[in-house]
Amino acid sequence: MNINPKQLKDRILVSQGKAIADFILRNAKVADVYSLEWRLADIVVSSGNIVAVDTTNTFEAKSEEDAKGKYVIPGLIDAHIHIESSMVTPSAFSDILLPRGVTTVITDPHEIANVSGAEGIQFMLDDAQKSEMDIFMMLPSSVPSTPFENSGAILKAEDLQPFLSKEKVLGLAEVMDFPAVLSGEPDMLDKLIMALEANVQIDGHGAGLKSNQIRGYRVAGIQTDHECVTAEEALDRISQGMYVLIREGSAAKNLKDVLPAVNAHNARRFMFCTDDKHLDELIKEGSIDHSIRLAINEGMEPLQAIQLATLNAAECYKLHNKGAIAPGFNADFFMIDNLESFRAVSVWKNGQKIAENNEMLKKEPFQNYLSKEITETVHLPRLSVSDFSIPITNNGTANVIEIMPNQITTRKKIVKVPVSDGLFTPCTEKDLLKLAVIERHQATGNIGLGIVNGFGLQKGAIATTVAHDSHNMIVLGTNDEDMLAACKYLESIQGGFVIMDEGKVMASLALPIAGLMSDKPANQTVEELEALHGALHLIHPHLDFHLFLTLSFVSLPVIPELKLTDTGLFDVVNFKHIPIQA
Amino acid sequence: MNINPKQLKDRILVSQGKAIADFILRNAKVADVYSLEWRLADIVVSSGNIVAVDTTNTFEAKSEEDAKGKYVIPGLIDAHIHIESSMVTPSAFSDILLPRGVTTVITDPHEIANVSGAEGIQFMLDDAQKSEMDIFMMLPSSVPSTPFENSGAILKAEDLQPFLSKEKVLGLAEVMDFPAVLSGEPDMLDKLIMALEANVQIDGHGAGLKSNQIRGYRVAGIQTDHECVTAEEALDRISQGMYVLIREGSAAKNLKDVLPAVNAHNARRFMFCTDDKHLDELIKEGSIDHSIRLAINEGMEPLQAIQLATLNAAECYKLHNKGAIAPGFNADFFMIDNLESFRAVSVWKNGQKIAENNEMLKKEPFQNYLSKEITETVHLPRLSVSDFSIPITNNGTANVIEIMPNQITTRKKIVKVPVSDGLFTPCTEKDLLKLAVIERHQATGNIGLGIVNGFGLQKGAIATTVAHDSHNMIVLGTNDEDMLAACKYLESIQGGFVIMDEGKVMASLALPIAGLMSDKPANQTVEELEALHGALHLIHPHLDFHLFLTLSFVSLPVIPELKLTDTGLFDVVNFKHIPIQA
Repeated sequence: MNINPKQLKDRILVSQGKAIADFILRNAKVADVYSLEWRLADIVVSSGNIVAVDTTNTFEAKSEEDAKGKYVIPGLIDAHIHIESSMVTPSAFSDILLPRGVTTVITDPHEIANVSGAEGIQFMLDDAQKSEMDIFMMLPSSVPSTPFENSGAILKAEDLQPFLSKEKVLGLAEVMDFPAVLSGEPDMLDKLIMALEANVQIDGHGAGLKSNQIRGYRVAGIQTDHECVTAEEALDRISQGMYVLIREGSAAKNLKDVLPAVNAHNARRFMFCTDDKHLDELIKEGSIDHSIRLAINEGMEPLQAIQLATLNAAECYKLHNKGAIAPGFNADFFMIDNLESFRAVSVWKNGQKIAENNEMLKKEPFQNYLSKEITETVHLPRLSVSDFSIPITNNGTANVIEIMPNQITTRKKIVKVPVSDGLFTPCTEKDLLKLAVIERHQATGNIGLGIVNGFGLQKGAIATTVAHDSHNMIVLGTNDEDMLAACKYLESIQGGFVIMDEGKVMASLALPIAGLMSDKPANQTVEELEALHGALHLIHPHLDFHLFLTLSFVSLPVIPELKLTDTGLFDVVNFKHIPIQA
Repeated sequence: MNINPKQLKDRILVSQGKAIADFILRNAKVADVYSLEWRLADIVVSSGNIVAVDTTNTFEAKSEEDAKGKYVIPGLIDAHIHIESSMVTPSAFSDILLPRGVTTVITDPHEIANVSGAEGIQFMLDDAQKSEMDIFMMLPSSVPSTPFENSGAILKAEDLQPFLSKEKVLGLAEVMDFPAVLSGEPDMLDKLIMALEANVQIDGHGAGLKSNQIRGYRVAGIQTDHECVTAEEALDRISQGMYVLIREGSAAKNLKDVLPAVNAHNARRFMFCTDDKHLDELIKEGSIDHSIRLAINEGMEPLQAIQLATLNAAECYKLHNKGAIAPGFNADFFMIDNLESFRAVSVWKNGQKIAENNEMLKKEPFQNYLSKEITETVHLPRLSVSDFSIPITNNGTANVIEIMPNQITTRKKIVKVPVSDGLFTPCTEKDLLKLAVIERHQATGNIGLGIVNGFGLQKGAIATTVAHDSHNMIVLGTNDEDMLAACKYLESIQGGFVIMDEGKVMASLALPIAGLMSDKPANQTVEELEALHGALHLIHPHLDFHLFLTLSFVSLPVIPELKLTDTGLFDVVNFKHIPIQA
């Protein structure tokens, strides 16, 4: 961190009334997150920092505003998010959430790193740098996520090390590979030791882990968990010395279940996060502001919820100048109309008013600085219709993936499937469709094929390059021709989503940045996204679940029971590949 | 921090029951400092760290002990202490406090640094290294303490910088020179910026500072205060974003007054410290264990008091492996008989039992490694009796220092003093004695002379090199001959305390390490100290206050009202030197 001596001196002098402040927000009902009290005061700002929370009305400033007794709250902190899941760049993301009062996020560029490796991390750092939001970063610990698939990169400790000294990098991101941790695999130990020796934070990922496994995580130096789904799990993590990030995102919504674990004594160890949340939902309901509203709705005292969303996250991630409205802190705060609606009406970042009534004030032309490593990431082999053929030589009994609508888990079931000329034939009546995962990073030609039940498509095909966590190309279809066309089209726009029917593109969303993020601002992207959602009904008239979300997780081989990667069908329960024929 | 990969892996494996533990303390009633609950469990240790707090009775170990349901508490942390004030070396200090359950202290080697500069800091680091206690260090920010006296060293930011990278160094120690902070003096800014850029802790010293001055401290990046004397002051510091260290030492006892500020919401921002506590009192009543007993006696819930003394201090100083009994933490804990007496019966450090029934178990020969820079620090000019003469040419009206027994403040009063042959003559009936402060670092010949009321000496003289904060030689006497003899004797033993009467040494305590610390173990030093205290009564039959303590602070020119340094009488209220004649 570089400190400007002149600014530091100026701030001290202003704090002592010996120089004029830059800005005063007068008559603010200030959230004191230390004592959980509201305090009527003037917030005095000098060169981006708060220099006084004054009750004597003795300060002068170059400009001022009267809060008229409205509630003013420290900038909110999202303690764990993958910005890529919003489908827009960090700077576009910033423009959506800052007007909500979210002034700081800690992101794990796990998705883009699995596509573009170190270049992907660097792109996120660079793009974050030009955002008005403070975007801190944890270094992806799991690239590739598993050995059962091919991603676009491999990042070892030595690849991550150079990033540790970057100002916005706070530590090692969620450590997912629990078998590697609990057996002490060398590559995993290297990353943990790198972080421990640098004395930085290590985030965990304790999805479904039992108390004794969490113990192993703690012994390995892992300090947080954002995967708790019950209050009981949360209390176990707390007593073992972990911080708990209460998650409320697009797919996983854990707030209501975990919140009962919080009490006056242990509240300091809890904070909020979104993990993964899509653009349309971020625009519609916000992120951490939404968590606060939910928490208040669940009966939590508003100041307690605010403390979780501010001071607690700042303490956990050692952001000493964030999380409170007090002298010495960054002047990041926002004003709300009332506690019931909890909607930001004005937002200040570094003492500058940057948003009002849910709109950014400064409209700068949206710009990206994109390199080939980031925008040319979809590389398919030469594909033909026959690549999608699934030969069935037995009586038709097959291992089928049964999806659970809106969930990232699936079931494995054995079904007699339609066969014609020795090949599986998709059947919309029985909802037995064809699924393919095509390695798209190095055009290796790897294609995993499978049969899936539950998606309910009536015709055509859908393809996407948003396919957790290796982000290969997933294509789901009722016929091979549309599947092939969807893949080719997606390659031509370098990733995103496409809906194809009878050889025609019904709708698409281009995500040319690593096949994950739009290169356009959020408002344009969300229009395309809504058109895409609309077009889904053309091939699925009775759709009542989040098809894209569900599809994007069908390739994640760490979540039970049966998944499909570019290396084939993977039985997560028995941790091995299995054939389609049962 | 260096991490041993094999140890890390072993610990993980032990935590998963895949290898044998080193030690288990079974059936412990464990303090859960996160939830403030007692929990009956087995504490499982592998290579110095806790790897499980187990309730399933499934672990095996090379050795074990049955706690039989006794309370087990994380090792206590003294968040701020000047070990020099104990008058023994860090390793001797460690041997006294470890059996009390104090396993970690954060020390500011401010005293030795004012005598021996960087060599003094290095000596403390080296000596701390061979202690079994974890002794962390803050870098002295105020050497010299003030411009109104001459100390043995000057330490600027560039002198401190090399120490910042040492493993046990946590930040910049208590910043005392508030005028320099609040006016942004360049040397002070350099030190603050050094610490801010390194992202390390900066401790404060807000003695008597008003809310608006504390605000300036916060803006300057200062994070703690251990000088609160009222609950109101403490609450002001808390709401301004500071941590409050509740002090209970030899001179300053603030616990009862500050404790009412602590409540369930703000408790996380409070911890305990001793600041300055003498050897005899440390031996008699302990340190942070004493604070806990006092707090419980004041009605604080025992687990809350324990949390202040453990987790809170660890969080504040970012000691991630300390402050709790949970997996991943250093195996520093102790067992007590009951909550009422709160006395450690057994103490474990890094999983080894090191003390029982207030005694260290391992009796190693006591050793020091001392260099000349540390042991040859008392350099007087050639002194004669006439150097103590105070000429009085007016009617005898003089500015006199009136001491307040047991306090470090004094009063300035104007008194008609006895004069003979144009010189002030000490008078025991009127209790007007002679005081001299002699520069003792470079033998510059600087001698400050003054007249003092309130010490009540009946004969002889007393001299010491423990003289806050520059540690020149203070001599107090009823006659010039004994004062001269006391100074010469103290030079011959290279510092400490001496009581001189009619040219004879009545008692002395040699503190040859920087004139501040004994080179002997604590048990020998305390015997000499007790003999010294006993001998005081020979020259002061009705002594009822802590004379040495009061004397040692009479030269500290930052505490009101009238003090004496080697540069003469200093009026602290008007911040200027004044003559003896009024």
